[in-house]
Amino acid sequence: MPRYRELTHTARPSGAPRVFEPKNPLRTTDPGALEMLKIAHDSNVETVFDRVVAQQPQCQFGYKGVCCRICIAGPCRVKADDGPASKGICGATAYTIVSRNLVRLIAGGAASHSEHARHVLHTVHELVEGNAPDYQIKSPAKLHKLAEKLGIATLDRSDIDILRDVAELGYADFGRYQERPLAFLDSFLTEGRRRKFKHTNIMPRAIDGTVTEMLAQTAMGVDADPVNIIFGGLKTSLADLAGEYIGTTLSDVLFGTPEPIVSESNLGVINPKMVNIAMHGHNPVLSEMVVAAARKMTAEAKQVGAEGINVVGICCTGNELLMRQGVYLATSSASQEMAIMTGALDAMVVDIQCIYPAVQTVAECFHTKIITTEAIMKIPSAQHLAFSAETAAEDARKLVNIAIEAYKHRDPKKISIPNERHKLVAGFSIEALTDIMAKVNPDRPMSVLTDAILSGQLKGVALMAGCNNLKRPQDEGHVTVLKELVKNDVFVIATGCSAGAYAKFGLMSPLAVDAYAGPGLKSFLKTLEEANPQLTTGLPLVFHVGSCVDNSRGADLAFAMANELGVDVPRVPFVASAPEAMHEKAVAIGTWCVTLGLPTHVGSMPPVEGSDLVYGITTQIAHDVFGGNFIFEMDPAVGAAKMIDALEYRAWKLRVHRQAAEKYNTPMAQGW
Amino acid sequence: MPRYRELTHTARPSGAPRVFEPKNPLRTTDPGALEMLKIAHDSNVETVFDRVVAQQPQCQFGYKGVCCRICIAGPCRVKADDGPASKGICGATAYTIVSRNLVRLIAGGAASHSEHARHVLHTVHELVEGNAPDYQIKSPAKLHKLAEKLGIATLDRSDIDILRDVAELGYADFGRYQERPLAFLDSFLTEGRRRKFKHTNIMPRAIDGTVTEMLAQTAMGVDADPVNIIFGGLKTSLADLAGEYIGTTLSDVLFGTPEPIVSESNLGVINPKMVNIAMHGHNPVLSEMVVAAARKMTAEAKQVGAEGINVVGICCTGNELLMRQGVYLATSSASQEMAIMTGALDAMVVDIQCIYPAVQTVAECFHTKIITTEAIMKIPSAQHLAFSAETAAEDARKLVNIAIEAYKHRDPKKISIPNERHKLVAGFSIEALTDIMAKVNPDRPMSVLTDAILSGQLKGVALMAGCNNLKRPQDEGHVTVLKELVKNDVFVIATGCSAGAYAKFGLMSPLAVDAYAGPGLKSFLKTLEEANPQLTTGLPLVFHVGSCVDNSRGADLAFAMANELGVDVPRVPFVASAPEAMHEKAVAIGTWCVTLGLPTHVGSMPPVEGSDLVYGITTQIAHDVFGGNFIFEMDPAVGAAKMIDALEYRAWKLRVHRQAAEKYNTPMAQGW
Repeated sequence: MPRYRELTHTARPSGAPRVFEPKNPLRTTDPGALEMLKIAHDSNVETVFDRVVAQQPQCQFGYKGVCCRICIAGPCRVKADDGPASKGICGATAYTIVSRNLVRLIAGGAASHSEHARHVLHTVHELVEGNAPDYQIKSPAKLHKLAEKLGIATLDRSDIDILRDVAELGYADFGRYQERPLAFLDSFLTEGRRRKFKHTNIMPRAIDGTVTEMLAQTAMGVDADPVNIIFGGLKTSLADLAGEYIGTTLSDVLFGTPEPIVSESNLGVINPKMVNIAMHGHNPVLSEMVVAAARKMTAEAKQVGAEGINVVGICCTGNELLMRQGVYLATSSASQEMAIMTGALDAMVVDIQCIYPAVQTVAECFHTKIITTEAIMKIPSAQHLAFSAETAAEDARKLVNIAIEAYKHRDPKKISIPNERHKLVAGFSIEALTDIMAKVNPDRPMSVLTDAILSGQLKGVALMAGCNNLKRPQDEGHVTVLKELVKNDVFVIATGCSAGAYAKFGLMSPLAVDAYAGPGLKSFLKTLEEANPQLTTGLPLVFHVGSCVDNSRGADLAFAMANELGVDVPRVPFVASAPEAMHEKAVAIGTWCVTLGLPTHVGSMPPVEGSDLVYGITTQIAHDVFGGNFIFEMDPAVGAAKMIDALEYRAWKLRVHRQAAEKYNTPMAQGW
Repeated sequence: MPRYRELTHTARPSGAPRVFEPKNPLRTTDPGALEMLKIAHDSNVETVFDRVVAQQPQCQFGYKGVCCRICIAGPCRVKADDGPASKGICGATAYTIVSRNLVRLIAGGAASHSEHARHVLHTVHELVEGNAPDYQIKSPAKLHKLAEKLGIATLDRSDIDILRDVAELGYADFGRYQERPLAFLDSFLTEGRRRKFKHTNIMPRAIDGTVTEMLAQTAMGVDADPVNIIFGGLKTSLADLAGEYIGTTLSDVLFGTPEPIVSESNLGVINPKMVNIAMHGHNPVLSEMVVAAARKMTAEAKQVGAEGINVVGICCTGNELLMRQGVYLATSSASQEMAIMTGALDAMVVDIQCIYPAVQTVAECFHTKIITTEAIMKIPSAQHLAFSAETAAEDARKLVNIAIEAYKHRDPKKISIPNERHKLVAGFSIEALTDIMAKVNPDRPMSVLTDAILSGQLKGVALMAGCNNLKRPQDEGHVTVLKELVKNDVFVIATGCSAGAYAKFGLMSPLAVDAYAGPGLKSFLKTLEEANPQLTTGLPLVFHVGSCVDNSRGADLAFAMANELGVDVPRVPFVASAPEAMHEKAVAIGTWCVTLGLPTHVGSMPPVEGSDLVYGITTQIAHDVFGGNFIFEMDPAVGAAKMIDALEYRAWKLRVHRQAAEKYNTPMAQGW
C-alpha cells in the first residue's frame, strides 16, 4: 500500500477511485520555504503554494492526455470508450491524441534546451568573431577534448581557430538539411546506440528541423499512428540531448569545467547585511558576468551602507554558478518566490525557463527589482535590460547597480531570513569524477566505479534529475528517493532542482554520508577519499553534476561505464529518476534516457494514462526496442525500490555474462 | 441580430448566455455530402458529422484559450477573475496563457507549411543532383522570374544550375543562423512591409529556427508578456509565409505555373465505370506522378473491366491537381469520408495534412484502399507505400495498381454516387491573372484592377481561404460570404477548401456570374473577357488561385496592387477571410494576413476570448502597428458586411489621397 499519493491522482495501475488526500497543505517540505510560507500566509501574499490548491481539481482530460486542442474545430475530448464520443472530430482516437500531445511536450523541451544552447553558441560565435571582449576560453583542455571528439583538427592551431570550427559545427547541427547525423550527438554515443538509432531511424540530422518536423507530424490530419508518432518523439528527444551537449560542453569551454567546490544552500544564504542579487533561470552566459561584476563592486555596495555584494543562485542558473563559482544556492524552482519574501533580496535577475511570472507580483510587495534580460523572456511590469554578449560586462555592472540602488529602499520591518543553510560539495563534472577515480586506477578510472558494481559494493548508479512539481509537496519525492537509493548503496549523481533539493536539505554534504549511506557506498566513498588527499573536503552523499542541460553529463557517465564494461547502455546498472518532473524539458530528458536504454523513474504522471497503448509503449515496448523504459510511480519510496530492482537485475546479469565471457574467452553478450 | 450562431458559442462581444441552437443537425450544406450523409445514417457508418455532435458541449476553457497544458504540473485553467484561481500554478495570467496557446498554433501552422515546402525543396534538390529522373523543370519562365527575384544570376546559365542555386537558398532559409532575412520572404515584400518588419523586429532569419524559438519562448517559465509573445507569433507567421512561397514557387517550377483550365467538381465526378483514385492531402510531389502514371495505365484498368482510370482530388492535393491538370475535385476536407461512402472509390492515396484518421474506419466498410505515402503520416491499419522522389514514377504505378486491384472487389450494391457535379474554371496563378489583364493594359496590367477599384467599378479584392470547421454547417460560411461579396462588386480570389466549396457548389463557373455578381463585377469581368478572345471559356465568379500554400499568391496580388498604387499594403482595398478556419495553418495564414496589413475576417473563433487584452491586440492594436487586424465574426453575412466596409473605407481614402497627390504633385501618403 503506497504511503504517498498525488494531490488528486493515485498511481497506475489502480481501479480505485481517485482520492483527495492533501498530506501537507503547505505543499512543501523544504524547511527554508516552510518558514517563509508562514510569513506569506500571515501577510496575505499569494504564492505558488496557494495557486496549486486553487487549481484543484485539475482537468482529467488534460491530465490523461485525451484533450486535443491541435486545431480550432476542437477542443475535443475522448469522453467514451467507444462510439463517436471516443474520438476527436477528425476521428483521432485516444492513442493518437495522447501520443501527439506527448511528443509535442518533447518538442517543447527540445526547443527549450536548444534555445539555451543556441545562446551559448551565439556567445562563442561572437567570441571567435572578436565581438565579445568579456568572454574567453577558460577551459582549453575541454575545447581540445571536444574538438577531438567532433573530429576537428587541433594540431598546431590556435584555440580560437579550433573554437571557430566547433561553433560552425554547432550551428550546422541546428540547421543541417543533409542526411547526416547531429555531430554533437553522434560523437558522444556508444557504438551500440549509434547502430540502434540508425536502425530505428531516429537519428536526427538537425535540431531545429527535427523540432519543426515533429510539430508538422502532429498537426491535424497528419500522423495518426501512435508508434510512428512516438518514434518521432524519440528522435526529437535525441535532438534535445544534442542541444544539451552543445550547452554543457560550450559552457565548460567558456566558463571552465567544474571541479569540486564547497558552498552553502537554502534561504539562509541571503545575507541581511549585503546587497543580495539572485540569479535565476538557466543560462550561465549572463550570470557568470554578473558574478564577475559583483566581485569588483564591493566599494559601490559599501557606499550605500552594505557590507558587500552577495550573489545567490536560484534554479539552474544557480546550479551553473554553484558548479563553477561556488555561488550560494538560495533555493530551487518551486520556492523561488520565497527568496523575495525574505525582504532582503534587492534584485532578481532572470534569463530563461522556470521563472514564475508571479515573481513580479510578489516583488511588488517588497523593494525587490525583477529584471528580465533576454529578448524572448519578458514579464509585464518587470524591468527589462537587454543583455548582449558584446556589452556583457557593462550590462552586468548595470544589473548590479540596480540591486545596489534597490538596497537603499529596503524595509527593515519586512526582513525575515530563515536560519536555514547547509554546507555542500558540488562541482562534479564527469572530468572531475574521473580524475578522482583515476587516483585509484590511473589506467582505467571508470573501472573503479564498474568494479565496485560488479563486486556488489555498489548496486549501481542513479541520475536524479528534474524539477519540482507541486502535485506533491516540494522536494519530498527527491529526498525520499535519494535516501532509499543511498541506503541501498547506489552511487547517485544529481542535476537541476533535484540537486537543488539535496543542497537545500544538507544532503549534498560529506556529513550526510555517515547518516544516510549504506555500508557499500560508505566504503566506496572512503576509498576515493583516501586516494585523493589533495581534496580539501570529504566527498558528498550525492554528486552534483550540474543544471538540467547537464543531464548530458549523466549520459556521458553512462556511456563511459558502458564502454568500460564492453556492453551497450541497456546493460549498465544505471537508472534515472525525475521524482518531481514538471517542465517539457523533463519530458524530453526522460525520453532520451529511455532511448539510451535506462530504466527511468518519473514521479509525476505525464499525460499518457488516456491510452493503454501509449502507456504500454512507454513502460514496456520501449524496453523491447531500446532496453530502457519509463517507470511511472507516484510513491517515491516504491519508485526507489523499483529502481533498485532494475539495478540489481542488471548487475546480476552483468556478473553472469562476465563470468561466461571470461570462462569461454568471448566478448560480452550484447542483448538485454 | 446575427442570423447564425456557432453550435455552442455566440460571437463576441456579447454578454448573453451561450445558446445551443443546432441549425442544421446534419452539419453540412454541400448537396453532394448531404446525399451521402443520408446513406451513412441509413447504414450506420459513423462520420465526422456524428463526431462533431458527440463532442458537444466543448470545453469552454480550451475554447477560450485559458487552459494551459504547457507543463505537467497542470493542466491549469483560469477559473476566476481574480485571486489564486485566476492564474496558472506558476502565476501565468489569462493573457499569458492565451497568447502562448495562440502562438503555438501559429508555430504548428508554420511547421506544417514548411514541412510541405521542405518536401518540394527536397524533390528539387534530388532533381538537380540527378536523383529524381521522373521530375523536370516544367516552367523555366517561373524559374527565371524566381531566380531574378532572389538575386540569383540567370545569364548564360543552364536551368539546372539556376535551380541548384535556388534550392540552396531555399535550404538556407530553413537553417540560417546569421541575422539575415529569409530570402523567400524578403524578396517578395513591398518596401514598406520590409521596413515595418525590420522596425518591429519580426523579420525571421530561418524557418526552422523561428518555429523552435517560438516553442522555447512559450515554454513554462519563459515569456509572460503577451505583447512580446504575440510579436514572436507574428515573426513565426512570416516564417509560415516564407514556407508557402517556397512551396508555391517551386511547385510551379516543377509542375508548371497554373493557367486557366476547365474542370468539374463534387462527388458526381466519381465515375462508376472507371477505376477511381482519390488523391488527398496537400503535396503535388506525389499526386502529379500518380496522375501521370494513371494516364498511361488505361489498358491495365480495362483488363479488370473498367473503362479507364479516373483520378479525382480531395482537399488541397485536389486543388493542386485541379489548378495544373484540370483533375476533377471530388470534395473538400470536411466531406472527405463521403467520397468513400460512394462505394466506387477504389483507392484514396494520401500525403499530409487534413486527412481524417477516420477515413480508414469508413474504408473498412467498403472495398476502398487507404494508402499513406509519407514517413511522417501513417494511419493504423492503412497500407503504407513509402513514396520517394528517386522512384516516383514506379511508386505511382504501384499506387495505381493497388486501385486497379481493389476495383475487382467492389460491391455493386454499395455503389451510390450523388448526381451532383458542376463545371468550373480554375488555374488562376497571379501570372495568369496578370496575362489576362495585360490584354487590357499591356504596360501596366495591374492597373486594370486598381483602376477599377479607384473608379468604383469594383469595391476591392478579397482572398477567401481556409478550411471547413464544423462548428458551423460545412461550406455555409464560405458560400454566404462569397455571395455577399460578389453581389457588392468585390473581386474574389480563393484557395484551399474555400475554393473547394465554390467549386462544389457551381460558384466557380462562368454561369454563376450572371446569377450572383453585382453590376460592377459583371462589367469588369466582361471587359476582361472581351480583351481575351483566346480564352475558350468565360471567366468565373470567383478565381481559384490554388491550395492553402498558394495563399502566397494572394500575398503576391496584394503586393502587386500596392506597388501599382504606390502605397503599402495597408492602403490597398484588399481583405482576407477564412469563414471556416480550422487548421493551425489557417491561424498562421490569418496572422500573416494581418501582419501584411489586411483586414482579416475569421468565422470560427480562435481561442482568444479568454483574454480581453489578447482579443484587443488581435482585433485593434494590430491595426495601429501593422495596418491590418482580425475581424472575428461568426455570422458570415455580417462578416462579409464588415469586409465590405473595410474595402469601401480603404478605396475612399485611396481616392482622396490620390486626388491630393495629383493636385499637389506629391507621392501618395503612406500612413493608414
